[in-house]
Amino acid sequence: MDARIRDSFGRQSLMQTFGAEITGIGAGTVTIEAPILPGSCQQHGAGHAGLTFALADSAAGYAALTLMPEGCEVMTVEAKINLLAPAIGEKLIARGEVAKAGRRLTVCRAEVHALRAGKEVCVALLQATMIPVEP
Amino acid sequence: MDARIRDSFGRQSLMQTFGAEITGIGAGTVTIEAPILPGSCQQHGAGHAGLTFALADSAAGYAALTLMPEGCEVMTVEAKINLLAPAIGEKLIARGEVAKAGRRLTVCRAEVHALRAGKEVCVALLQATMIPVEP
Amino acid sequence: MDARIRDSFGRQSLMQTFGAEITGIGAGTVTIEAPILPGSCQQHGAGHAGLTFALADSAAGYAALTLMPEGCEVMTVEAKINLLAPAIGEKLIARGEVAKAGRRLTVCRAEVHALRAGKEVCVALLQATMIPVEP
Amino acid sequence: MDARIRDSFGRQSLMQTFGAEITGIGAGTVTIEAPILPGSCQQHGAGHAGLTFALADSAAGYAALTLMPEGCEVMTVEAKINLLAPAIGEKLIARGEVAKAGRRLTVCRAEVHALRAGKEVCVALLQATMIPVEP
Repeated sequence: MDARIRDSFGRQSLMQTFGAEITGIGAGTVTIEAPILPGSCQQHGAGHAGLTFALADSAAGYAALTLMPEGCEVMTVEAKINLLAPAIGEKLIARGEVAKAGRRLTVCRAEVHALRAGKEVCVALLQATMIPVEP
Repeated sequence: MDARIRDSFGRQSLMQTFGAEITGIGAGTVTIEAPILPGSCQQHGAGHAGLTFALADSAAGYAALTLMPEGCEVMTVEAKINLLAPAIGEKLIARGEVAKAGRRLTVCRAEVHALRAGKEVCVALLQATMIPVEP
Repeated sequence: MDARIRDSFGRQSLMQTFGAEITGIGAGTVTIEAPILPGSCQQHGAGHAGLTFALADSAAGYAALTLMPEGCEVMTVEAKINLLAPAIGEKLIARGEVAKAGRRLTVCRAEVHALRAGKEVCVALLQATMIPVEP
Repeated sequence: MDARIRDSFGRQSLMQTFGAEITGIGAGTVTIEAPILPGSCQQHGAGHAGLTFALADSAAGYAALTLMPEGCEVMTVEAKINLLAPAIGEKLIARGEVAKAGRRLTVCRAEVHALRAGKEVCVALLQATMIPVEP
């Protein structure tokens, strides 16, 4: 399972641009962490919503992929994110998990926390729909 | 109006990382364009959903800002995106517009099109809520 | 086309509870209208968000169904609604339309307007994903 | 706290139409239950998405209200729902909870379960934004 996720993740160049890495893979769960790089910010110097969204979306998508048949890839159909607090801190931690795995559709949730002085602050909640795609 | 938007946009380092620029500003509308850089992709080489989202979110947010009082900044409360087609093409064009400008909340929509061989293909629809913030 | 939509709509008992009727059907578009009945309200006497949502969802879903193969039924996968103004007026008019019809998924939008003293006020915007289902 | 919630809920005529009642109130949480009445259905006889949405929205909104200052009322800004399974069963149970209570905005989640032969099946997940309103 891990190899498939890590291989696909390794080919997401945006994740490399963001300095992101996978730090946890389980059945229906994936954790991705990334620093808030100088080139990932909005106008006040916090992480851009696009950074937070990308990490949440990838964590949710790969969480879905852990439960999909071998040989599939995963694609995001739609996602909704609520931004709860500015993305400020040493790094962002996005945890994705499957809420309902179906044959045609998989519904996922993700939470993004910012690590600030050793404490986690929740900065975003995402709810999304994923589909399997044949390569 | 333009100067305020362009100044804020210029301080969004993620937009520079993505090579994005503002190509249109009106009352309640903003257009942002960006190439699909080698470092902005998902695992199949198309633009990552995080790229598409970031452009749509910024276009929607700045569209909201055009109608907010001078001295305000804008922040995304929440956003929902439907991804309609892979982000493949010469560039992406995100057009944001205000659906309802309120004192406390502004509701916006954005569409992202990919330019492919001179033709525009709609790749995403976004619907979002923005708030004014004091600096 | 019309018969299939009207037949399915006629079997939605909630639409009868709401006094709703279809007032327009085109290729990829459906309009539904309903009064704001005494039994459809929230705590301040305006139409409940559940009423507005139900009309928008049905208009969007049936708009999708107009473009689906004969023999299919339609189901809502997910929907997101922004409530722009209180649902107050003589009646609500929900207009659904298809943004992208696909084989597996159809993305729709709907707008709900309240008719107030002969003028339409936009009270809600919906963006949703529909799927075809075999009976 | 309870009196304020129950009083407001009692004035939501749609909840009476649906036969809904509050079965739990805590700090930041509200539970609402309702049967699937003959007049609350979609075309296949399952509960309509409008029913599921209305219960989830009210549970989330009242969960938010439990943490708002006395004298406030609550309004839904926007909500997003994923429908996971048909609303079939003896009754629906909607549990709302606050994810982040802020001065200007409160972000909530709700889950709706259907009780089928004594077992709960999750039929919907909602994520929403609420605001306090002065009466």
